[in-house]
Amino acid sequence: MDATSSEPLTKTLDESGIFAPVRKHFEALDAFLEAQVQEFAPAARESLRYTFAHRGKRLRPALVFFSGWKGEDAVEPAAVRAAATVELIHLATLVHDDILDDAALRHASPTLFAKYGAHTAVLLGDAIFAHALKLMSDFDEVELCRALAVATRKICTGEIWQTTERGNAALSLEDYFEIIQMKTGELFEVSALLGASLAGRGADAGAAFARFGRHLGRAYQIFDDIVDYLGTESAIGKTLGTDLSSGKFTLPEILFFRGLDAREREAFLAEAAAGTLALGDVSERMRAAGVFGESREYFLKETRLAADALAPYAGTPGTEHLLALADFVAAQVRKIS
Amino acid sequence: MDATSSEPLTKTLDESGIFAPVRKHFEALDAFLEAQVQEFAPAARESLRYTFAHRGKRLRPALVFFSGWKGEDAVEPAAVRAAATVELIHLATLVHDDILDDAALRHASPTLFAKYGAHTAVLLGDAIFAHALKLMSDFDEVELCRALAVATRKICTGEIWQTTERGNAALSLEDYFEIIQMKTGELFEVSALLGASLAGRGADAGAAFARFGRHLGRAYQIFDDIVDYLGTESAIGKTLGTDLSSGKFTLPEILFFRGLDAREREAFLAEAAAGTLALGDVSERMRAAGVFGESREYFLKETRLAADALAPYAGTPGTEHLLALADFVAAQVRKIS
Repeated sequence: MDATSSEPLTKTLDESGIFAPVRKHFEALDAFLEAQVQEFAPAARESLRYTFAHRGKRLRPALVFFSGWKGEDAVEPAAVRAAATVELIHLATLVHDDILDDAALRHASPTLFAKYGAHTAVLLGDAIFAHALKLMSDFDEVELCRALAVATRKICTGEIWQTTERGNAALSLEDYFEIIQMKTGELFEVSALLGASLAGRGADAGAAFARFGRHLGRAYQIFDDIVDYLGTESAIGKTLGTDLSSGKFTLPEILFFRGLDAREREAFLAEAAAGTLALGDVSERMRAAGVFGESREYFLKETRLAADALAPYAGTPGTEHLLALADFVAAQVRKIS
Repeated sequence: MDATSSEPLTKTLDESGIFAPVRKHFEALDAFLEAQVQEFAPAARESLRYTFAHRGKRLRPALVFFSGWKGEDAVEPAAVRAAATVELIHLATLVHDDILDDAALRHASPTLFAKYGAHTAVLLGDAIFAHALKLMSDFDEVELCRALAVATRKICTGEIWQTTERGNAALSLEDYFEIIQMKTGELFEVSALLGASLAGRGADAGAAFARFGRHLGRAYQIFDDIVDYLGTESAIGKTLGTDLSSGKFTLPEILFFRGLDAREREAFLAEAAAGTLALGDVSERMRAAGVFGESREYFLKETRLAADALAPYAGTPGTEHLLALADFVAAQVRKIS
């Protein structure tokens, strides 16, 4: 339930080399996911394979692996299963998101919803959720199972909350941060927790890596919420983002609205609803109002908190890869804002 | 993902007294469910309460309670939690079903989908699933958790299978029975298993009660698939059921089609697609072809297998209530066919 718009990030991420150390882990993850397909009824397999083939950035699996890092060649089966579990939960939310957003494309390919219809998308999303939770129940550590179930519920309720706030131009910053924590922070957090716990790193380290995950997830969601406005070249001439025109207000809109008086805000919303606003124009008005500088500060605060969480674990294997990942996301925001 | 059409059954069931012994258990279940509402984000609570208020027949909770029966006053917290878990999984599937069926009403009340929209229905269904699985993870018995996760996946994949078979007038009886096993049999089975296991009845009894549940679930789904045709009074003058006109063929259609040659079948399907068939007429043609007698035989075979499973447990507490429940469902079919 995040990042539909940052397709270029996947490419940049692949090219960055950040994920080079985790190549063998990702291969094991792919093989594990492929093997899961056989666990589904034959009728579900084609659409399931389609979902797997159009995978995302695998930030959550990377968090699992790096948080329990023992080296490039040390691929632990429990970590692979945990990575598959969090990725399946993420994929299930994407499948359902595409129905809600009536989305035809994701990462330049037809969505499952567009290709197989709403029926299959609702049901396959449910089946993927259920399978993730079955994998989760294969852990002997019942508290990890519980953490995943709680995170899953929070993702869904965070989305419900955001849905009920549609059109609310007075959404508070506090509520925004709580929503992104639920939508994105939770699963990043539990991914890091799973990785550290399964590697036997102990409760303190588990909590620290989880905190890293939480703040990285929040930073990533902020990035995703501002990236549409900030890709300056692609933004010019584009029509207004669906988020704004559908009344789904995130960080840039909240900050922008705070600087307008009631009359200005109403006039802006009327223009947005009428579809007469161009993304480039809105972007310029936001820039002039200092929205992106302020957004960047909120973003960088999260990446700083992420790095702080790992400060006591500077020498622990994997820490350098996690910090490189946080730096990479931060560099994207610096580059575009 | 069953029984949308048997609203009168709820009333008959309430009046039958079958559920009288389980009254205190159901009260504890209601209180438990109400307490769960607080575990959800405030934005989700209204729609969640709406879902709980329009509850179904609670056959699955009854199976949990009776399978671990220790008396009318012996309300065990673990059984209540298990009953809540299976009921929540069932409710989540109903919430999603209503989206897929574009259903405005369920049990004469507006569906959650009709009242709150597809967004909320998809997300609340997900959140209810996730919460059920969180409750499930509260069990120390990891194998029960696993059984529930597997059952949930099978419900979803059974539905996907049925969806992919839409319009397939050559759907085999074998596939039909496998689909209803996945859609309905599994959750009834795991409900009985949970009840017996949590009551410490041992592996053999657990397997026997589970087998009872499976066959009761299959019988119940057959009943649900034929009831639209058989409620003779209400059937006359009604338009054709949505199942047939949407190409969702179940037991009566499969049996009916087997008695037609290719040309007759095509003519019938063309009439159905054109919307010129009246339910009463179809019902009469099916009756003349012996479809309902044959359906009843399949139904009674399931109730017999259910009763057989419990034969070695004739003196075990709860067995008489379970058999009464099976008899009750059988009596409904005898009454209408």
